[in-house]
Amino acid sequence: MSNSDFQQVTETATKPTQANPYGPNPADYLSNVNSFQLIDSTLREGEQFANAFFDTEKKIEIAKALDDFGVDYIELTSPVASEQSRSDCEAICKLGLKAKILTHIRCHMDDAKVAVETGVDGVDVVIGTSKFLRQYSHGKDMNYIAKSAIEVIEFVKSKGIEIRFSSEDSFRSDLVDLLNIYKTVDKIGVNRVGIADTVGCANPRQVYELMRTLKTVVSCDVECHFHNDTGCAIANAYTALEGGAKLIDVAVLGIGERNGITPLGGLMARMIVAAPEYVKSKYKLHKIRDIENLVAEAVEVNIPFNNPITGFCAFTHKAGIHAKAILANPSTYEILNPHDFGLKRYIHFANRLTGWNAIKSRVDQLNLCMTDDQIKDVTIKIKKLGDIRPLNIDDVDSIIKDFHTEVTTPLLKGLKDGKDEDVNAIDIEEPVSKKSKTA
Amino acid sequence: MSNSDFQQVTETATKPTQANPYGPNPADYLSNVNSFQLIDSTLREGEQFANAFFDTEKKIEIAKALDDFGVDYIELTSPVASEQSRSDCEAICKLGLKAKILTHIRCHMDDAKVAVETGVDGVDVVIGTSKFLRQYSHGKDMNYIAKSAIEVIEFVKSKGIEIRFSSEDSFRSDLVDLLNIYKTVDKIGVNRVGIADTVGCANPRQVYELMRTLKTVVSCDVECHFHNDTGCAIANAYTALEGGAKLIDVAVLGIGERNGITPLGGLMARMIVAAPEYVKSKYKLHKIRDIENLVAEAVEVNIPFNNPITGFCAFTHKAGIHAKAILANPSTYEILNPHDFGLKRYIHFANRLTGWNAIKSRVDQLNLCMTDDQIKDVTIKIKKLGDIRPLNIDDVDSIIKDFHTEVTTPLLKGLKDGKDEDVNAIDIEEPVSKKSKTA
Repeated sequence: MSNSDFQQVTETATKPTQANPYGPNPADYLSNVNSFQLIDSTLREGEQFANAFFDTEKKIEIAKALDDFGVDYIELTSPVASEQSRSDCEAICKLGLKAKILTHIRCHMDDAKVAVETGVDGVDVVIGTSKFLRQYSHGKDMNYIAKSAIEVIEFVKSKGIEIRFSSEDSFRSDLVDLLNIYKTVDKIGVNRVGIADTVGCANPRQVYELMRTLKTVVSCDVECHFHNDTGCAIANAYTALEGGAKLIDVAVLGIGERNGITPLGGLMARMIVAAPEYVKSKYKLHKIRDIENLVAEAVEVNIPFNNPITGFCAFTHKAGIHAKAILANPSTYEILNPHDFGLKRYIHFANRLTGWNAIKSRVDQLNLCMTDDQIKDVTIKIKKLGDIRPLNIDDVDSIIKDFHTEVTTPLLKGLKDGKDEDVNAIDIEEPVSKKSKTA
Repeated sequence: MSNSDFQQVTETATKPTQANPYGPNPADYLSNVNSFQLIDSTLREGEQFANAFFDTEKKIEIAKALDDFGVDYIELTSPVASEQSRSDCEAICKLGLKAKILTHIRCHMDDAKVAVETGVDGVDVVIGTSKFLRQYSHGKDMNYIAKSAIEVIEFVKSKGIEIRFSSEDSFRSDLVDLLNIYKTVDKIGVNRVGIADTVGCANPRQVYELMRTLKTVVSCDVECHFHNDTGCAIANAYTALEGGAKLIDVAVLGIGERNGITPLGGLMARMIVAAPEYVKSKYKLHKIRDIENLVAEAVEVNIPFNNPITGFCAFTHKAGIHAKAILANPSTYEILNPHDFGLKRYIHFANRLTGWNAIKSRVDQLNLCMTDDQIKDVTIKIKKLGDIRPLNIDDVDSIIKDFHTEVTTPLLKGLKDGKDEDVNAIDIEEPVSKKSKTA
């Protein structure tokens, strides 16, 4: 079903003048909901998405689009991953973007030495700290981790560029181990530490509690990275900001390992509700659709039908009771204003759940003059046909126009009077008998 | 890209014997994470999805599938919505399903009188309580709402069936108004009260706080309904259960008004992590894929590429560092076990981010015998080709087999020695010069 089947509604809402009731909780004195930053990892985490193969040209196109949108950082695949990864990293560093360019490496001097030569503004270092990763990935203990972290951090700092140290699989790591290593790297002066929910197991209150604890231990900024295996990546990111995190890792459409991470667009939906002025002034929200289309095409996926903001029905209202209120004031059933994203809202009135307010609005659009009682009558006819089969806009318009002709043509009106059951005689594609068959 | 391009991995993880560290927070003494119930609303909220048109046959097919899966309740469109809605409701009530059948009506005696005659096990009553809905939808004040609620509740109770009273747009309603009306309806004996985030504005900590407060006011069960406009519907549902909610409204794929509500499959992903024994014993998780396909086909949408559990890459691992650890122990990078859902995991090894452990696993699968050093050498060749263009499994197998032939054939080995640069001479579809063009 295309949007042309729907009726667009005119914006009539007035802007609220009072303080935002959905804004940061005043109890969260550490909250960065109004001052967060974005690290886009489409060209790192996103390259780990099953379908991703970005050539240099595509990487540059994506990096430029993200920069134009206004992300604060762009994170790139490790230059050690392959020779092409290294040269692409250098090429993007030379673009002169406003966004700072980062590359993401293992906690190894071998990797660090290559990374600092690429021209990046900063290096994101990661090492697994959970017992799973310590046993099955790198096989090192916390002392070894601390030792290599210090060596790599001091080396990167000596080159005058930013350095982040992140644990991997933070939510399955021992809390004391975690706090210990973060305290150590904070003391030697990292720009930020990272928390990573690498397997997507974290829930919002766990995230909040870990953030609050961590903020009592480190003075640097905290960056968060959430996988979406259990569908909580947006909520976890928001709750992390409430708890004092400053930076969130995102990817366009959330692409990454498995089903991905916090999506850029979805997080914008969340954040514009909480911090509308900050979000609208900092990011070019009307570019979200284009960026998502660019990346979706590059990795050969469709925009999910239920995507926040850009899903085909994200601003479509259907039930009669919803349509009525939306027509009176869009804020009734909308927390997001489609206009903020360069999009439009639709009332889906061609179905059996429709109501007479939605039909009245359509009658007005058709520039027909009918009384409320007449509109209620024609709505009954429309709902009856909608019970039999899916309707489109032309069906509804036909019924309305036929009915209008009847009630406004004295002769025809006289002829039709007293045989209201003729409603089923309108021209439909499927036989009316289907109704009795399925009843 | 189809899953046939990926390499399936054998399950080797052992079951944890200790208490679940991702389970309910012991501080949540009201938590229902281990005892929640599901109200599936695919045939009510889902019917309000833009693309939904379910005929009687399809409704019955969906209801039976949900019943087989194990949902506790199935909610149907109001019998007042249309004549067909009423007769479909009656037909589903007559199926004799294990799940209780509910219908969802406005807080009107007119609607209630029709609903109780359909044969349903319970009636879900809803009325808007936010200032938006009171002003632009029904235009009634809180006293009127209480009065009609009492009338409808007492009428439905007199018929001996279950009754739920829900506010609409609860998170934009006045807290005192809300608690007042819930306390009133609890006293006259509703089976449960409902909280509805009708516009999708709520965040997890708000949900938790409202639940905790509400549980001090009412003694009945609490049901929650979360829209997904800002991507938090799964996390909000989980956090509501932590705070004492008992029942969650879901729809298959989350279909509903706009971009929908908490999805059945996504919530299962969340809940199996927190309450594995409860979820696995109560619900037929291996049916999720079939139910999602059934509904997706009926409403003409695709399963989103990033859907929890059933997204095409939800259990696909790509980066070398991930693949290595997954091969050693799947729990390293997986919180969900694909086998619990009748699915399989894949290692995506045919790409430039691959590592030698993933290739070693493929070499073993091909039943070839190579030393670790040889595998590392062939991995370098594979990554070089992966830099130039997307790879498929046949590309990688060719490279491995060619290399294996070289190193195991003394004559060929002698001929090839000293000209390692020949790696680029393997048969590829695109000219090698593309590499220098994009470098």
